[in-house]
Amino acid sequence: MSRQPEKALLDALKALLGPKGFTQDPIVMAPYLEDWRGKLKGEAAALLSPASTQEVVAIMKMASEAKVAVVPQGGNSSTVGGATPSKDGAALLLSTKRLNAIRAISPEESCATVEAGVILSALHEAADKHNLRFPLNIASKDMATIGGLISTNAGGSHVLRFGQMRASVLGIEVVFPDGSLLENLRPLRKDNQGYDLRQLLAGAEGSLGVITAASLRLIPKPHSKIVIWVGVESPSAALALLRHLEKESGEAVEVFELMESSLIELVLKHIPDTEIPTEKAYPWYVLIEATAFSEDFDLEALMVNILADATEKKEILEAVIAQNETQAGKLWRLRETIPLAERSEGFAVKHDISVPVSAMPSFIEQESRAIQEKFPGTTVLAFGHLGDGNVHFNVCPPKEVTDQLGWVENEGIAVSHFVYERVMANGGAISAEHGIGQTKLADFMRFGNKTKIQALKAIKKAIDPQSIMNPGKLLPVEQAE
Amino acid sequence: MSRQPEKALLDALKALLGPKGFTQDPIVMAPYLEDWRGKLKGEAAALLSPASTQEVVAIMKMASEAKVAVVPQGGNSSTVGGATPSKDGAALLLSTKRLNAIRAISPEESCATVEAGVILSALHEAADKHNLRFPLNIASKDMATIGGLISTNAGGSHVLRFGQMRASVLGIEVVFPDGSLLENLRPLRKDNQGYDLRQLLAGAEGSLGVITAASLRLIPKPHSKIVIWVGVESPSAALALLRHLEKESGEAVEVFELMESSLIELVLKHIPDTEIPTEKAYPWYVLIEATAFSEDFDLEALMVNILADATEKKEILEAVIAQNETQAGKLWRLRETIPLAERSEGFAVKHDISVPVSAMPSFIEQESRAIQEKFPGTTVLAFGHLGDGNVHFNVCPPKEVTDQLGWVENEGIAVSHFVYERVMANGGAISAEHGIGQTKLADFMRFGNKTKIQALKAIKKAIDPQSIMNPGKLLPVEQAE
Repeated sequence: MSRQPEKALLDALKALLGPKGFTQDPIVMAPYLEDWRGKLKGEAAALLSPASTQEVVAIMKMASEAKVAVVPQGGNSSTVGGATPSKDGAALLLSTKRLNAIRAISPEESCATVEAGVILSALHEAADKHNLRFPLNIASKDMATIGGLISTNAGGSHVLRFGQMRASVLGIEVVFPDGSLLENLRPLRKDNQGYDLRQLLAGAEGSLGVITAASLRLIPKPHSKIVIWVGVESPSAALALLRHLEKESGEAVEVFELMESSLIELVLKHIPDTEIPTEKAYPWYVLIEATAFSEDFDLEALMVNILADATEKKEILEAVIAQNETQAGKLWRLRETIPLAERSEGFAVKHDISVPVSAMPSFIEQESRAIQEKFPGTTVLAFGHLGDGNVHFNVCPPKEVTDQLGWVENEGIAVSHFVYERVMANGGAISAEHGIGQTKLADFMRFGNKTKIQALKAIKKAIDPQSIMNPGKLLPVEQAE
Repeated sequence: MSRQPEKALLDALKALLGPKGFTQDPIVMAPYLEDWRGKLKGEAAALLSPASTQEVVAIMKMASEAKVAVVPQGGNSSTVGGATPSKDGAALLLSTKRLNAIRAISPEESCATVEAGVILSALHEAADKHNLRFPLNIASKDMATIGGLISTNAGGSHVLRFGQMRASVLGIEVVFPDGSLLENLRPLRKDNQGYDLRQLLAGAEGSLGVITAASLRLIPKPHSKIVIWVGVESPSAALALLRHLEKESGEAVEVFELMESSLIELVLKHIPDTEIPTEKAYPWYVLIEATAFSEDFDLEALMVNILADATEKKEILEAVIAQNETQAGKLWRLRETIPLAERSEGFAVKHDISVPVSAMPSFIEQESRAIQEKFPGTTVLAFGHLGDGNVHFNVCPPKEVTDQLGWVENEGIAVSHFVYERVMANGGAISAEHGIGQTKLADFMRFGNKTKIQALKAIKKAIDPQSIMNPGKLLPVEQAE
């Protein structure tokens, strides 16, 4: 168990980091102590903002010697409280915000070497200047940092084509809990020298060390892009369409986002300047983005052919192709504002789940009905990354409930347990892209594979025997040796 | 340290596995005890050939209770002695050959669920029947098994486009050293529930458990394919060509294999029915394979355009496009028979190294010269996966040496140390795709990153505290707790 930091440690940290790197001012610290949704509040003995990898090394050496916990924080956009310290105030909060240098972009290597605190949209812009692209994209791109994206193995809208964050990590620089530094930043496409620590750190949620920098794979910008909005009858029809597209266009499809019609109705209701582009309304919609890397490849002609064929096969009911960037932006806006529209409408019990891709349509269809039977009056709103077998599966309270938050607080656990039991029965995961953090920890311990959890605990103990790295996230706090 | 098995254990294993699953017959065991190149010979107390996952569970429970070592073996095609037991004869050799069922191929899921002992070419054929494809391809495809390919994170010729083996593993079934079974076979594209054990097991070389089955990603078969043979001036010109191809064709290029001309001369000398397809001879050659997934994409026209442009830019000196499967096969044969031709010619000190892709041309050019200066009379022959920053970098004895094997044995360590020092100075890896096994263990301990090795040892001890899983491979044998 980690300890409360003593004054001598705090003084030493203050001397090490200087006024820009050390504060105990409650007003300055406040936004770092609360998660972005305002649901969780923690305390910390101090906020540390190191400006270099060597300062992180020094912090971890001092912290491990004193057995004091360290909570790393990037953009503080975790949806599972992964970067919010516990209430006991014993931890040091380590913000990576000052580790924000883009150290190098190498067009020859198609690689960016960036520090952990670099914000995703800043990397997008920097790559763009070299006519390159970092393909990972998530709604919180203006907050989320590279360190956090790696630590949570972030997903988002382009996973179908480019994989989750782990697929883009070519090199990593990490400070382990004892302060030892692993400098593994040279971008190697191939490295078969034992367990791949890059892959172990990706998704470790800061529980094994502090990522200070990474080398990331960049890709060429596509020659052409097409954005399509499609109305479909059902999730099954949507999946048939995706398979059809893949068969005819290979990996041209980058984005394939499924949305239940009532979610789009919420968007129309709450978000200004939005409209359905199709002539009629349909039970489900899909947002498709496809790209081509060669000027010899007439992407639009191909897509028009496929859509015509898919219409004949009844896979789609109506399709609209964006004719310019503005129209494409409007289609994207319908998808991207769903979470905001949902929040405007009220509260819901939210889930970020995955099952095998082929099982997802029947999961959505059957389990929505089962939930509505078990919890009468509720509505299930599903949307997201059908091609990854991952949807956000939200259960809304019955219409007659006036205290929605109270309902969510009272019924939430029963609803989630019901959902997660069905996810487990389908061989799925209770966290597809958001991670475990602290808010899903109890559910992970309840529903997670026991043999896997045992292995995770053994690895955690091996790398962080004092349990000082982001304790209580991903795995429960264990008695230290 | 693991122990010699007692008679009671061997009797119990015999009773468990029956005559097909248990033998101590030296004649039957002999081929399993020797590595395929005939360089290493080990001993084992018995050869176990379990026919089911449950039998593997029972074996590991008995072995861990008795603290007896287990060496898993797939197709026995390791180039680093990864599946050859030590000479002390204390280990049980566990062959996965009877775990050879293709449990399921799901076109809906684009996924194959196969047991560890399935041979790669059998998976290729099975996928083909469903009009699907498993893209990983290596020279030993008729020997290598899925369990071994995952455990060594195999590479091969198509990594450029599809990644190493780890990129295709969607689910895994593994028996840990204590006999606990992790059943994680449902193919999840997204699973952010803590450290990804699929990724930890991939490349672990059997040191953390016995993989018994896996779910693997399949992809659609391409609509068209083109195979091209190109003569180039230098590795730098070859890399410029690759970047040019990528820029104009996206990810159409699946294979980009660089070969030094003297290797091709060895092929012409030793392999019947081979000829250079170009009109003239050139210093370096490249074998290119590209594919298109859409019938609307005229791959050949695109490639002809790019090659014409590349000729103008002096990236290439001459190009030949295979006009049919037979011609394509002949081009592939020139590349695939290089190792055989090398062996026919004599002995060499071999290395499987990687550096960042952009650094590889100058590495080949400069370090070949440096080696030839340091070891006068030697010749460096480099070939392989330029686009992955990985080449096989072989140093041949001076022409006047008559006892080549003696030279390799006497000079090999000094030559390899020199090569590896240069690899390290370039931020590379001393094993790009073959792994560490036993033959590279001393070099890994000498040249590997010390912080990384420390973390690897901690993880090994956490998962295999008795050090009974494939001891002495990847990491040295440590005193058990």
